Amino acid sequence: MIKGNCLVGQSGGPTAVINASLEGIILEALRSEEIDHVYGAFNGLDGILQEKFVEFTNDDLEDLDLLITTPSAILGSVRYKLPEEDEDITVYEKIRDVFIKKHISYFFYIGGNDSMDTCHKIAQYLLRIEFPCQVIGIPKTIDNDMVETDHTPGYPSAAKFIATTISEIYQDIACYETGRVTFVEIMGRDAGWLTCSSYIPSTLGMAPDLIYVPEVPFKVDLFLEDVSRIYQKNKRVMIAVAEGIKDEAGVYFLQKRLYNNNDDFGHLQLGGVGMVLAEIVNKELKLPVRSIELNINQRCASHLLSYVDIKEAINVSIYGVRMALKGITDKAVIIKRISDEPYEIYYDLVSLDKVANLVKKIPLSWLNERKNGINDEYLKYIMPLIKGEVKVPYKNGLPQYYLLKNRQK
Amino acid sequence: MIKGNCLVGQSGGPTAVINASLEGIILEALRSEEIDHVYGAFNGLDGILQEKFVEFTNDDLEDLDLLITTPSAILGSVRYKLPEEDEDITVYEKIRDVFIKKHISYFFYIGGNDSMDTCHKIAQYLLRIEFPCQVIGIPKTIDNDMVETDHTPGYPSAAKFIATTISEIYQDIACYETGRVTFVEIMGRDAGWLTCSSYIPSTLGMAPDLIYVPEVPFKVDLFLEDVSRIYQKNKRVMIAVAEGIKDEAGVYFLQKRLYNNNDDFGHLQLGGVGMVLAEIVNKELKLPVRSIELNINQRCASHLLSYVDIKEAINVSIYGVRMALKGITDKAVIIKRISDEPYEIYYDLVSLDKVANLVKKIPLSWLNERKNGINDEYLKYIMPLIKGEVKVPYKNGLPQYYLLKNRQK
Repeated sequence: MIKGNCLVGQSGGPTAVINASLEGIILEALRSEEIDHVYGAFNGLDGILQEKFVEFTNDDLEDLDLLITTPSAILGSVRYKLPEEDEDITVYEKIRDVFIKKHISYFFYIGGNDSMDTCHKIAQYLLRIEFPCQVIGIPKTIDNDMVETDHTPGYPSAAKFIATTISEIYQDIACYETGRVTFVEIMGRDAGWLTCSSYIPSTLGMAPDLIYVPEVPFKVDLFLEDVSRIYQKNKRVMIAVAEGIKDEAGVYFLQKRLYNNNDDFGHLQLGGVGMVLAEIVNKELKLPVRSIELNINQRCASHLLSYVDIKEAINVSIYGVRMALKGITDKAVIIKRISDEPYEIYYDLVSLDKVANLVKKIPLSWLNERKNGINDEYLKYIMPLIKGEVKVPYKNGLPQYYLLKNRQK
Repeated sequence: MIKGNCLVGQSGGPTAVINASLEGIILEALRSEEIDHVYGAFNGLDGILQEKFVEFTNDDLEDLDLLITTPSAILGSVRYKLPEEDEDITVYEKIRDVFIKKHISYFFYIGGNDSMDTCHKIAQYLLRIEFPCQVIGIPKTIDNDMVETDHTPGYPSAAKFIATTISEIYQDIACYETGRVTFVEIMGRDAGWLTCSSYIPSTLGMAPDLIYVPEVPFKVDLFLEDVSRIYQKNKRVMIAVAEGIKDEAGVYFLQKRLYNNNDDFGHLQLGGVGMVLAEIVNKELKLPVRSIELNINQRCASHLLSYVDIKEAINVSIYGVRMALKGITDKAVIIKRISDEPYEIYYDLVSLDKVANLVKKIPLSWLNERKNGINDEYLKYIMPLIKGEVKVPYKNGLPQYYLLKNRQK
C-alpha cells in the first residue's frame, strides 16, 4: 500500500470549537494506516500557496487535548477569495504543484460557507486534472447559516456563551428599580440564529423583552411603540438585536457607522447597530439607554463551551477523514437530526456545491406574532445542543492554551 | 440576653462577588446567638426607607450556596445620594424609625466608595442620637479604587474575567496574517486598576501592545506614533484603554459621545472611548480598526470567578459581623496584605470617613517608561488574587442562579 499525506487548513472567522475540528482530523489521520504525514497549513490557502506547513506527529498527542479549549484558529485563518479557474489558473496550478511536492492525497478544509466554495473549486479542479486527492469540507461557523446541515459546529458554543451572558446582563440590569433601555448587539449578518439564542434564558425567566432578527424588516415606528410600552410598565427594557437588521427595502438598517472596513469577500463589516438604535430611543422617547456589543467574544470565548458541540466538532472531522479514506471527494460533512428528545443525530455527506456560498435563514415559525420576539419552538431545537460543560485547564488562575511551537516561523 | 436584628443592603454597581459578600453576612448572622432575625433590604437605602425587606432563615441555607455564582446584586441595588443631615434630617429620622420598628441592632452595607459615605453618615447620625446600632461597611467594587485596603472584593474576579477575555481576543486577532488596530475598552473612570489586568496574559505571552490608564495624560501624537510603529512591524496592534482616559488638562478625553446619561452622583457615564480612538487611527493612519467594549460583563460575569476573591468576600463579611457583635461601629472592613508569595493577608477595620468618597490610583511604578504599558511589578500584586476557579452549577446547559422567591413583591 502506498501511503499518502494529509493536509488540513482552517479558514474564515474562528469559532470556539474550530480547534476541536482540527483535533479530530489530526487524531483520526494519525491513527490511520493509509495516511503517512499529517500537515497543517498556516493561514489556510495562503499557507498552501506559500508552503507554510507544520507537521503533527504522535509526539504531539500528549499536548493535543489542550486544543479543545484553545481559542481561535491555531493554524491561523485567512479570508482569501479563490478566483475562478478561467480568471487565474496559475493559483490552481500552484496548489497542484504543492500537493505533488508534499504528496497530499487528502485535503480537509475547516470553514464556513465561503470556505466551502474554495474547497469545491479545488476539488473540481483536481478532479478535472485527475489528480488523486480527496477533498472534504469540514463545516464550522458560529453563524449556523449553512444549508443542508441541522447545525454547524461552533454555533452551539456561541449560543451557550450568548445565553449565559444574556442571563448575567439580565440580572445586572434588573438590580436597579428604574433602569435603562439596554441593547445587546449580537452577530449575524443575514440570519438570526445567534440572536435567537438570546431567548434561551427564557427557561430561567430571563429573556430579553424584544428580539430583532435580520429575517424581519425592521420598522422603527413599531419598535418605538414597543419600547415605550414596555418601559412604562417595567421601567426598563432589554433588547437583543442582530447586527444585520434591515429596513423594508432590504437595506442594512445601519448604513452609516463611524468607520467602515470591507473584508475580501465584499461583505460590509457591521457593528454598532445597537448604538444607533439607542440613539434613536434616547432622542425620540427621552429614555436613558445603553448598548452592549457582544463582539468577537461570541466566537472566541473558549472558556465557556458546549460539551455536545465539542464532541460533534471532533466527530464531524473523524467522519470526514474516514469518508476521504473511502475515496470520496468534493463533499462536506453534515449533521442530520433524528430526534430532539432524546437528542439523536447522524453524520452524512453532501456535495460541496450544495452548501457553497448559500445562507440558511431561521424558520419564520420561530417568531412570535408581532415578529419582535422568539417562541418556544426554538428551544426544542437549541436546548439539546448546549448541554454539558467542558472543563478548562487552568494554571495560576489563567486558562492554558495549546501553543504551536513553530507557529512563528 | 436581649437579641437584636440584623439588616443588610447592597449598593452601587454590582460585582461578580457582591452576592458572596451577602452570603457571608447571612451565614454568620444566622449562626450568631446575639442576632435574632436576619433581614435584607431591597435596593439598599430605598428598601430601608420604603420598608421593603426580606427575611433569611435557616430554611434558606440549603439554596444559599447558589448565591456565590449568582450574578448581580440579588437584593437589588441603588444609586441614592444620602443628603447631609442639615440638608434633610427627615431621611435620617425615617431610617431611625424603621430601625426602631424592626429592632435593627446591626446594619451592614455592601458597597463602594459612595456607599461607604452613606454608611458613614448613618453611623454618625445613629451615634449622635445614641441609637444602639452597629454600622459596618462591607467593601465591594470591581474598580478597586478604595483607599486603605489592599484590594476590594470584586476586583480579582473582574481582573480574571478581563485577563481571560484579553487572552481569547489576542488569539482571535492573531489568526489572520494581516490584522487591524483593535481597541479593548475597559471600565475605570479615574483609576487604571481594571485596565492593568489586561497585562495579566503577558504571563502567557499575550499582552496588549499598548495599555492606557486614566492616571497618565493621553497624548494623541505619541499614541499615533506608537500605533503606526507597531502596525508596521506586526501588521496588527492590540490596545487596552480605560474608559476614563483624560487629556493633559485633566479633561475626559471622551467629552462627546452618542448619548449621555448622568447618574445620581453626577458622574459622567462614560463608554465608547475605544470607538473614538479607532476613528482617529482610521482617519489619521488609514489603518483598519475595531473597538471592543467589555462593558458590564466585567462586573456580572459570574461564570468566571476567582476562588480567592469569593473566599475573601465571604470572610470580609464574616469578620464584619464579628466586629459588629463586639460593639464596633462606623467602620469598614479592609484587607491588609502581609506578603505576595506565599500570599498572606489579614482583615482589619478602618474608620468609614477614611475611605468614603476617596479614590485610590494605581502606583505609577507599575507603568513602563513610555507610560503606554504596564510592567511586571503589577503581576506580583495581582497573580495571587486571581488564583483558583469556582465551579458553577449548570443544569440543561445553563448556569443556575439563586432566586429570591419574594423579590418581585
